[in-house]
Amino acid sequence: MANKQEFWGQKTYCLITGASKGIGRNFAIEFSRKFASNSLIVLLARSEEGLLETKNLISKANPKVKIVIHPIDLGKPDPELFLKVIQSSLENTGVKPTDFELSIIVHNVGSVGDVSEGTFKMSNVTKWQDYFTLNVFSVACLNSQFLKVFPEGSCKRRTVINVTSLAAVKPLKSMGYYCSGKAARQMFFKVLAEENPTLDVLNYSPGPVDTDMVAEVVSNTEDAEIKEMFVNLKESKNILTVDQTTKRIIDLLESGKYENGQRVDYYDE
Amino acid sequence: MANKQEFWGQKTYCLITGASKGIGRNFAIEFSRKFASNSLIVLLARSEEGLLETKNLISKANPKVKIVIHPIDLGKPDPELFLKVIQSSLENTGVKPTDFELSIIVHNVGSVGDVSEGTFKMSNVTKWQDYFTLNVFSVACLNSQFLKVFPEGSCKRRTVINVTSLAAVKPLKSMGYYCSGKAARQMFFKVLAEENPTLDVLNYSPGPVDTDMVAEVVSNTEDAEIKEMFVNLKESKNILTVDQTTKRIIDLLESGKYENGQRVDYYDE
Ligand SMILES: NC(=O)c1ccc[n+]([C@@H]2O[C@H](COP(=O)([O-])OP(=O)(O)OC[C@H]3O[C@@H](n4cnc5c(N)ncnc54)[C@H](OP(=O)(O)O)[C@@H]3O)[C@@H](O)[C@H]2O)c1
Ligand SMILES: NC(=O)c1ccc[n+]([C@@H]2O[C@H](COP(=O)([O-])OP(=O)(O)OC[C@H]3O[C@@H](n4cnc5c(N)ncnc54)[C@H](OP(=O)(O)O)[C@@H]3O)[C@@H](O)[C@H]2O)c1
Repeated sequence: MANKQEFWGQKTYCLITGASKGIGRNFAIEFSRKFASNSLIVLLARSEEGLLETKNLISKANPKVKIVIHPIDLGKPDPELFLKVIQSSLENTGVKPTDFELSIIVHNVGSVGDVSEGTFKMSNVTKWQDYFTLNVFSVACLNSQFLKVFPEGSCKRRTVINVTSLAAVKPLKSMGYYCSGKAARQMFFKVLAEENPTLDVLNYSPGPVDTDMVAEVVSNTEDAEIKEMFVNLKESKNILTVDQTTKRIIDLLESGKYENGQRVDYYDE
Repeated sequence: MANKQEFWGQKTYCLITGASKGIGRNFAIEFSRKFASNSLIVLLARSEEGLLETKNLISKANPKVKIVIHPIDLGKPDPELFLKVIQSSLENTGVKPTDFELSIIVHNVGSVGDVSEGTFKMSNVTKWQDYFTLNVFSVACLNSQFLKVFPEGSCKRRTVINVTSLAAVKPLKSMGYYCSGKAARQMFFKVLAEENPTLDVLNYSPGPVDTDMVAEVVSNTEDAEIKEMFVNLKESKNILTVDQTTKRIIDLLESGKYENGQRVDYYDE
C-alpha cells in the first residue's frame, strides 16, 4: 500500500480498543511514538485504571500526542454512544476529522470465551449471543460509526486493523467460541475491504503472545493438549512478547506489503 | 471414512433442517431413497405446507421410510424444545437411538441476511444477533441436543453434515452477514471434529444452486456485480440444479473421501 515515508510520521487520529493492557496497550504506546505532533489517540476498554496507566506510558513515549481515554463496556454496544465517543474525542480536543492525514481504528478488543466445555455442549444461546456481541457485533458497530465520522475523503488514508488469530483459520480444541468468533470477525473485515477499495484494511494475526488471555486459556481449558501447547510455548520461551508482535505490525504497516483485507500472521514470510 | 458398502443402505436416523424446500428438500428425498427399511427421517422448517410436500415426495421415493415433520422456527432456539423434538420423533415412532446403525444430522437451514446495505453500515446489533441466532447459535444448540440423544456408542456411525458455502471462505460484496455467519458456522464444525474423532463431520459447500435463496440475492443485493454474477450464472445455465449438488454429496458420503471436519466444495476435485 503506502511506501516507507507515508505511513508513520503523519498527523494521525488513532482509536484502539482493548487498550488497558496486553497487546492493545503496547500497540498504543509504540504507535504513538511514531505519530506526528498533535496526533490524537483514543483508548477504549473497561478498566479506567488500566487506561490511565497506558495514557501515562504514552505521555512518556511521545509527549506531543494528545490522549483521550474512555472507559466503556464494549460488550454492550450502542451505536449512538459509539458515535458520541468518537465525536467527543474530537470536540474535546478541538479538532476535526479533516485535520488529520491518517485515521486508524484498531479493533483489538477480544475475549477468549468459555474454554471449559466442548463444542458438543454449546447449547446455551445467551452465552453465544454475549460472546459474539462483544467480539463481532460490537466491533462491526464501532467500525461503522468510525467510518461515519471519517468518511471517504476526510483524510488521505483510512486504515482499519482487525486483530485476528490463528484461531480464525485453525480449529483449536475447547476454543469453539473463540475460533468461530475470530473466523466471523476476520471474514467481516474481508467483506469490508472487498466493498471499499479506498479503505486500507489489514487482518493482523499477532502470533501467540504472553498476555492475560493466554494465562486464562491455560487455567481454564478443558483440553489437556491445548493447555500443554501453551505451557510449552511459555516454558520454551517461544511465546512472543508484546514488543515482538508490535514491531512486526509496525514494520508491516511501514512496508505496506499486504493486499487490502489480507490476513497477515506474525510468522508469515 | 466409510467404504462403499458402509454408508448407504443402513438403518438410519436422519434429521434435516430447512427441509421445506430447496436443497434441504432434495437432500431429504434423495437420501431417503438410499436408506434401509424402517429408517426414520425427521424434517424441520417453518412451513408446514412445505414439509408436508417434502413428506409426500419422500413417501413416493421410498415408502419404507418413516417420516416425521415438525414445523418450527429455528430462529428462536430453545434447547429444551430441541431435545423434545428429537426425543419425541423416536418415541412417537416407537424406536430407540440404538435401533439405528447410522445417525445423521444435516444442518442445512440458512438465510442470506440483509444484502441491501454494505458492511460499513452494519451497526444494528439486534439485526446481527437475529441473523447469527438462526444461522449459527441455533445450529450449535440443535447439534448439541442431537449428540445428547445419540451419544458415542449409540450407533455404529454418527455423521454431522454442515451445509456451508463459498461465502465461508470468499468475501462477497453486500453479503456481510452471510459471509461472516458461514465462516463462523464452518469453523464451529471444524472444532467439533477436532474435539470428537469418533464423529464423522463434513462441511459441504453445495456450489451455486438454483433456489429461492439465489433469487433473493438477485432481487435485494445493493451490489451490481454480485447481482450480475448470479444473473449470468442463471442465464448461462451454469447454476447448479438441486439434483446435481445432491448427487455430489451422495457420492461423497459413499466414497468417504474426506477428512473429519473437512470442507468439500461441489467443484473440488
Ligand atoms: N495473546 C495472544 O496470544 C493472542 C493471539 C492471537 C490473537 N490475540 C488477540 O489479541 C487481542 C488482544 O488480546 P490480549 O492477548 O492482549 O488479551 P488481554 O490482555 O486479555 O486484553 C484484552 C483487552 O480487551 C479489553 N476488553 C475485554 N473485554 C472488554 C469489554 N467487555 N469491553 C471493553 N474492553 C474489553 C480488555 O480491557 P478491560 O478488561 O479493561 O475491559 C483488554 O484491554 C484479542 O483480540 C485477542 O483475541 C491474542
Ligand atoms: N442456493 C445456493 O446457491 C447455496 C449456495 C451455498 C450454500 N447454500 C446453503 O444451502 C442451504 C439451503 O439453502 P437453499 O438455497 O436451499 O435456500 P432456501 O430455498 O431459501 O431454503 C432455506 C430453508 O431453510 C428454512 N428456514 C429458513 N429460515 C428458517 C427458520 N427461521 N426456521 C426454520 N427453518 C428456516 C426454509 O424453510 P421455511 O422458510 O419453511 O422455514 C427452507 O427450508 C443454506 O444453508 C444455504 O446457505 C445455498
